[in-house]
Amino acid sequence: MNKGEVVIEPADASAPGLSTTAGSIFKIIRDLGPLFPADIVRRTGLAKSTVSVYVERLAAAGLIREELRPGGKRRMLKVAESAGYVMGVGLGQTHLNVGLCDLEGDVLDSIATDVDLLHETPESILSRVVAAARALTARNALAPAALSGIGFCLPGPVDYAHGVPVSPPVMPGWDRFPLASALHREFTCPVFIDNDVNVMALAERDKGAAAQDQDFLFIHAGTGIGAGLVVNGQIYRGAKGAAGDIGHIAAGPDQVLCHCGNRGCLEAVAGGRALAAQAAEAARTGASRYLAEGLAQGLAITPELLGRGAAMGDEECLRIVITAGKTLGDTIAKLVNFFNPSLIVVGGGLANLGERYLASIRESIYRRSTPLATADLIVKRTALGPTTGVVGSAILVLDEIFSHTNVGRLTRPPSA
Amino acid sequence: MNKGEVVIEPADASAPGLSTTAGSIFKIIRDLGPLFPADIVRRTGLAKSTVSVYVERLAAAGLIREELRPGGKRRMLKVAESAGYVMGVGLGQTHLNVGLCDLEGDVLDSIATDVDLLHETPESILSRVVAAARALTARNALAPAALSGIGFCLPGPVDYAHGVPVSPPVMPGWDRFPLASALHREFTCPVFIDNDVNVMALAERDKGAAAQDQDFLFIHAGTGIGAGLVVNGQIYRGAKGAAGDIGHIAAGPDQVLCHCGNRGCLEAVAGGRALAAQAAEAARTGASRYLAEGLAQGLAITPELLGRGAAMGDEECLRIVITAGKTLGDTIAKLVNFFNPSLIVVGGGLANLGERYLASIRESIYRRSTPLATADLIVKRTALGPTTGVVGSAILVLDEIFSHTNVGRLTRPPSA
Repeated sequence: MNKGEVVIEPADASAPGLSTTAGSIFKIIRDLGPLFPADIVRRTGLAKSTVSVYVERLAAAGLIREELRPGGKRRMLKVAESAGYVMGVGLGQTHLNVGLCDLEGDVLDSIATDVDLLHETPESILSRVVAAARALTARNALAPAALSGIGFCLPGPVDYAHGVPVSPPVMPGWDRFPLASALHREFTCPVFIDNDVNVMALAERDKGAAAQDQDFLFIHAGTGIGAGLVVNGQIYRGAKGAAGDIGHIAAGPDQVLCHCGNRGCLEAVAGGRALAAQAAEAARTGASRYLAEGLAQGLAITPELLGRGAAMGDEECLRIVITAGKTLGDTIAKLVNFFNPSLIVVGGGLANLGERYLASIRESIYRRSTPLATADLIVKRTALGPTTGVVGSAILVLDEIFSHTNVGRLTRPPSA
Repeated sequence: MNKGEVVIEPADASAPGLSTTAGSIFKIIRDLGPLFPADIVRRTGLAKSTVSVYVERLAAAGLIREELRPGGKRRMLKVAESAGYVMGVGLGQTHLNVGLCDLEGDVLDSIATDVDLLHETPESILSRVVAAARALTARNALAPAALSGIGFCLPGPVDYAHGVPVSPPVMPGWDRFPLASALHREFTCPVFIDNDVNVMALAERDKGAAAQDQDFLFIHAGTGIGAGLVVNGQIYRGAKGAAGDIGHIAAGPDQVLCHCGNRGCLEAVAGGRALAAQAAEAARTGASRYLAEGLAQGLAITPELLGRGAAMGDEECLRIVITAGKTLGDTIAKLVNFFNPSLIVVGGGLANLGERYLASIRESIYRRSTPLATADLIVKRTALGPTTGVVGSAILVLDEIFSHTNVGRLTRPPSA
């Protein structure tokens, strides 16, 4: 570990002996509460006296509270949502969103601002994040200790264990920038840094199209193309945090050069920039009447305009949109054969290209995946808005600090 | 669930409340034993008295035993390996292997026989499996109750929860054949059916090239091409048990028709049959002098002979072998970008094509995957022999019957 990097162990549910009874009980209350202690006894098979001991510890640690059942006399257990707050930070290529969230991951207050990721220094952006977070805690009259954690997502690969970006192509100067440790020094709470598509998948799991689904694939199609894998309810990051980095899968002709230096990469042939370039060409040559008129009117030839043209029935716009859907769908089909998800959620700017785009993706998947892998497979568009990064980052923190391992640490009596 | 299908719940470690303290303690003893009760206290954070209670229950259920430390007075805890046996069955297209294994997954005795999967009925093969298993229990003087479970692997997709094959292409008549329930009726113990590549990955995890690795990819390249995904130490089967079915990923020219009805499938261009056909062509035309001589001598033109030709330096044999490696490597590269494993183990008959084949696979992966995804990635050949299916099937049983959930059931006192 390099100097200046923060020491926060990510939860490792697979390591033997690390998941704790306190954590298991807390998770049951978080996922299924409010409920009675007897429900926990029934679900865990633990002795009533054991459950009582751990419930007392969790309450003493401020993680759960009792509430009277409406109209009844018996007390039920639930998460103490006002026991703390988490900060979710979503950093994009042009926008920064900082949101104060409760322990359910709902945004209570937020600050949004423009940034220029290609030209601003990491230090400049960090200071703006700190200022926004301080403004949010101040105007909501929160004591520093009320912040249980900070989640931060950014558009590039992340070394999750160390909380640093790793050679992010669209973030010059950020390679191994000690983001987690810098924020930890400012706010003292735990800090978790992740790739934006990963945390968007968490938001889909808890608040979106995959609500409560524990195994699915989130595809983010925008300027870049990425995937978030949710396995057993958790983000699957792979050995180096690079899992889901599907934008550079070979998917098109070798003539198309990608900014990564390779050829025919998925995002070089079907990402937002590729579609904007194809649309600009169709506007210039007049192949698309709709786009040519837009150009004449001085409109920016964007994927959004392309999508509108397709929706209006412009044939060339439709052709470009359908071809882009086919290219993405052909790649997803390979992942479906490999991973056999039951649900694929498509988000990102290109998800707004319209129903024909989604239909083209679906058709390619069904055509090129095995029948068993597509049996009951659902492909749908995200239901979440542009603040998904903030919500997902908050949920990331909640997942981590309320994991089996860490709840165990919080509640372990000093004498044990 | 259809009539006649067996009712065995697969372990679901992700379901809240299902993992038990007994199961956690047993897993620690199985993975790390022999060890002292104090080690368990330290690892779990449980009270000494709680650990004592569960250790007593596990011992009473016959799952663990105490042994004196060599030269010492203190007793250590370990799995009671002679407390039971498991049967591992490996069914291939031409061979059937049935092995009696101990609780460590080591083969104590086995019976191998030829089969013809394309022409024999499921009932005929089932009766041969039953006869072999009965012969093994009889000649090892085992009481029926000594068999803790049966694991069975076959070359096709499996509905794991119901223990039935699903439309296996190379097993006519086996679609939804009630294999698990039939074996359960014969032997009364739990029965688990899985795809052969999946259980081979388990064997790699416990006994092979991935020893003790909890996240890796096993690629089986033979007549068919398949993958086994190990995530957090467990087989990832996907929504329908189809995960890892990579043989039908689009990987080659559309002119190549696959037996599945699609075109350009990976196994149609780089599987054992495709290589045998290319080798036969090279023998017939004389493009390969080595193979042409083999043909003249009446040798069968197989992938093995092709591999020998490549090892002898025959240029056309080398070209075919290197091209096959490149095609497989290009597909694996996509999976590496998506899944970011730290280890890939290559097994199956084609893994014997030689070092140039492996080198070609490696080169394609490194060329077409992102630098972060291939940082520290290891690609190696299997170290296991042809009985991997038997060992893997036995390990599958051990994983299931000694899972958190099921150990919890075995050890839960009736009064709780």
